Amino acid sequence: MSKTPEGNFFEDFKLGQIFEHATPRTITEGESALYIALTGARHIAHCSEPVAKSLGYRARPIDDLLAFHIAFAKTVPDISVNAVANLGYADVRFLSPVYVGDTISTTSTVIGLKQNSSNKNGIVYVSSVASNQQHQEVLRWVRWVSVIKKNPDAPAPVTHIPELPANVAVADLSIPPFLNARNFNTIVTGGSFLWDDYRVGERINHPAGMTVDSSDHTLATKLYQNNARLHFDELAMRNTAFNTRLMYGGHVISVCRALSYDGLENVLSILAINAGTHCNPSFGGDTLYAWTDILEKYDFPGREDIGALRLRLVGLKNLPAAELQATHIDNNGKPAYQANVVLDLDYTVLMPRRLRNP
Amino acid sequence: MSKTPEGNFFEDFKLGQIFEHATPRTITEGESALYIALTGARHIAHCSEPVAKSLGYRARPIDDLLAFHIAFAKTVPDISVNAVANLGYADVRFLSPVYVGDTISTTSTVIGLKQNSSNKNGIVYVSSVASNQQHQEVLRWVRWVSVIKKNPDAPAPVTHIPELPANVAVADLSIPPFLNARNFNTIVTGGSFLWDDYRVGERINHPAGMTVDSSDHTLATKLYQNNARLHFDELAMRNTAFNTRLMYGGHVISVCRALSYDGLENVLSILAINAGTHCNPSFGGDTLYAWTDILEKYDFPGREDIGALRLRLVGLKNLPAAELQATHIDNNGKPAYQANVVLDLDYTVLMPRRLRNP
Amino acid sequence: MSKTPEGNFFEDFKLGQIFEHATPRTITEGESALYIALTGARHIAHCSEPVAKSLGYRARPIDDLLAFHIAFAKTVPDISVNAVANLGYADVRFLSPVYVGDTISTTSTVIGLKQNSSNKNGIVYVSSVASNQQHQEVLRWVRWVSVIKKNPDAPAPVTHIPELPANVAVADLSIPPFLNARNFNTIVTGGSFLWDDYRVGERINHPAGMTVDSSDHTLATKLYQNNARLHFDELAMRNTAFNTRLMYGGHVISVCRALSYDGLENVLSILAINAGTHCNPSFGGDTLYAWTDILEKYDFPGREDIGALRLRLVGLKNLPAAELQATHIDNNGKPAYQANVVLDLDYTVLMPRRLRNP
Repeated sequence: MSKTPEGNFFEDFKLGQIFEHATPRTITEGESALYIALTGARHIAHCSEPVAKSLGYRARPIDDLLAFHIAFAKTVPDISVNAVANLGYADVRFLSPVYVGDTISTTSTVIGLKQNSSNKNGIVYVSSVASNQQHQEVLRWVRWVSVIKKNPDAPAPVTHIPELPANVAVADLSIPPFLNARNFNTIVTGGSFLWDDYRVGERINHPAGMTVDSSDHTLATKLYQNNARLHFDELAMRNTAFNTRLMYGGHVISVCRALSYDGLENVLSILAINAGTHCNPSFGGDTLYAWTDILEKYDFPGREDIGALRLRLVGLKNLPAAELQATHIDNNGKPAYQANVVLDLDYTVLMPRRLRNP
Repeated sequence: MSKTPEGNFFEDFKLGQIFEHATPRTITEGESALYIALTGARHIAHCSEPVAKSLGYRARPIDDLLAFHIAFAKTVPDISVNAVANLGYADVRFLSPVYVGDTISTTSTVIGLKQNSSNKNGIVYVSSVASNQQHQEVLRWVRWVSVIKKNPDAPAPVTHIPELPANVAVADLSIPPFLNARNFNTIVTGGSFLWDDYRVGERINHPAGMTVDSSDHTLATKLYQNNARLHFDELAMRNTAFNTRLMYGGHVISVCRALSYDGLENVLSILAINAGTHCNPSFGGDTLYAWTDILEKYDFPGREDIGALRLRLVGLKNLPAAELQATHIDNNGKPAYQANVVLDLDYTVLMPRRLRNP
Repeated sequence: MSKTPEGNFFEDFKLGQIFEHATPRTITEGESALYIALTGARHIAHCSEPVAKSLGYRARPIDDLLAFHIAFAKTVPDISVNAVANLGYADVRFLSPVYVGDTISTTSTVIGLKQNSSNKNGIVYVSSVASNQQHQEVLRWVRWVSVIKKNPDAPAPVTHIPELPANVAVADLSIPPFLNARNFNTIVTGGSFLWDDYRVGERINHPAGMTVDSSDHTLATKLYQNNARLHFDELAMRNTAFNTRLMYGGHVISVCRALSYDGLENVLSILAINAGTHCNPSFGGDTLYAWTDILEKYDFPGREDIGALRLRLVGLKNLPAAELQATHIDNNGKPAYQANVVLDLDYTVLMPRRLRNP
């Protein structure tokens, strides 16, 4: 009996199946510092212990996306080792801060299955939950991936496609109850614009660009302990259409979010990712750029100090944000992403409001 | 008098000479996180504080090989600055866990000398001991290196070749007395095979490959504070047969061990390295692969919960493990390592057993 | 109104203007470990908790230059986003150790302005102060940069050039009052030379070289949160005379200082940077070398245990230190730096003395 795991194929997944994923991970100052070095992240709640405490956190929370990538990576060996495509994310909720010293575990449940007409693969929908060492849920999300069948003759499961929200409803956003932004001082971020200053429909072309070398994206992906092989094995990738190691899409999100700091300095945390698409692959040597569209604004009853912004973060490779005409082109009558577009992310963030009665 | 150290040449070493090496090093969460990013390591005792504590550790121990590389690096300025070849390791014993916050110092004793027939260099055998801040031994090992003579006319020392064990005897393995694997749950590792499931003679071809870029191996080697120049000075290396910076052999061990996770998920710690050879050099851009042979199985009186496996870890560059026919080829009548083989390591690990009376 | 900051142009700066810079940063073990990996630093006070405590520090201080780069980086968004050249540093004083867990903030005051004759840009002199979370000053420095004008027709300010000391006077050096090097043991550094052993006029050619890859310098610069774009955006840099990402000059200082360990092992800390020039640009792939000239020696009343050395650290790219004839060449009758010289730094360090009455 072979000792090396093959991973699960499409026919191995059953509706309702539960996976308790391996490698609970204690996250430390080391991970936090590396995340800054790998992405250039500057969001203040993750950088400054005194500022975090002044906002009500008991300590600095680790960066939301660092927590997400580590929690997500745990699902790879069980869910997506044999995936041919990571099709999408939905209903990603950031439920509670993750602090230095916390240990994160992830479990997943199969919530949907649909064999493709080719019989060669099928779509697996999983709902995943990450918890800390006190069994407190810190993150949950749904993703769906196209997984190959090992045996094309294996019978197709009953098709079940879960209902997924187009975006996380305001009522489902987890505002930390302890958070108090009444005394927030924009000097700590260098950005003077608050929730009140953004208008729906506004576009922000983030001016900076970030070239990501192969070492950068592979170091990041190893840090997250995401062991999907196509990120690491250059020799094997030479025999694929990609011709080189593929950059982990989550790292693209992280770099684009770090680039979005200029223009969105006062974002305190991510509340939700509503939807996300990796439109085109990124590789070592690509220079990433980003823009943000303001999609919606939410306020919360009884909270004069904070509001939320629903944002569309578009990531581009090798083309500054201001230079793209449109994200989509016509592809034989159907819209398709323009070749420079690598990320189309719909997410919701928390931002302090301008106080009326300070 | 020159302020810059030349290091020791073969004629400088005396049998019985003792070196107290520089740079006691405090090892932190930072080093641990970087080690994961640099190698993709996933062994559970080093990743999860709650799991480590459930096994009886007082905290997460740092990765065995991270401790080894840092302890080993301290010997470089005194022992191997003028080495032309790192000939071998033997009798490497992991005596006690190293925890975050521990400070490691290393001392070495010259235990053997043999001038080569060319008179140009000679072999120096050193026994090294690494201790923590409480003067507790955490690691010991023997290595031997070929060191050049500065003055070829310097008289040869009396030849003394130490007796070295072919492998660390079972009685010499240090099983942490506090370790208790009775409640070990394989869910945390994702691997279902325990000590009982491996058979002597079995081969495990680890499926993953890892491309190591120049930044990766030089960052790792600087982290270990191993300052042997051939790893860092590209300009100088252009004038050598290597033509580029040489990857530190210890980092090759680390990457191959990380690759060996798939198929050996339940290894808890390294108990010993019995022997090790860097068969061919590795360079930035090489993709590493590995296989493991099960050489021996040991059980311990009174320990139903754990056993040891003696393993042969073979590292390959630019050739997947399953594709190699044999490690050795015929070289004019003598066996020589095939050009893709970079590592041949004989080591012993600890693994939980399947409990009979759980 | 644009949400993305343009940064300040020359005409935006006013004499006496004060900036409270963004992103107070908590510095951790993570940053310290990364700094070692990125530079190969080995100075003992930053590496070993027991040695630091034996010297009187309450814990290991973080590396002086790591603190400097992080403190310095905070000034970039306000001061030098629109800089065309970083002209110099002066009067850099290391006032108090920075410890793991400290949070550093920086403020700057405009102390000089001089429009260039072209009317296209001007020189801005700023005095910056970095403080910890207890409002204790840990670092202060002056730098001057050439900043472009947005509107060439904007009126020139009154020229004011501050008086700057050629070097930080002995009386202005901050010797930590708690520091006690009476029991310093050179075994921990591996270097036997103390303050007494260096003579003014002596040159030390540091033997090692360090190749810095693109990932290394961009990871370092992101770690410091220095977001000057010319270090990161390969695509944009292709359209400049540099043709590639420019290495952050501060990282060049760090690598050269790490190289200077061999020959200056017993330096305990940096007291001051008297002057500094980035003579030529460095890029990913360059191999750096360094030499040190001993410029001056200072002793301190009542301190038998320590003295200071004023040093000139010359950094070279792609040429070993011993191979350079002269730092300057004749450029049409004027001296100019030879093309391999990348750094000319005048700084002052603390070193234990040989005790007379131990």
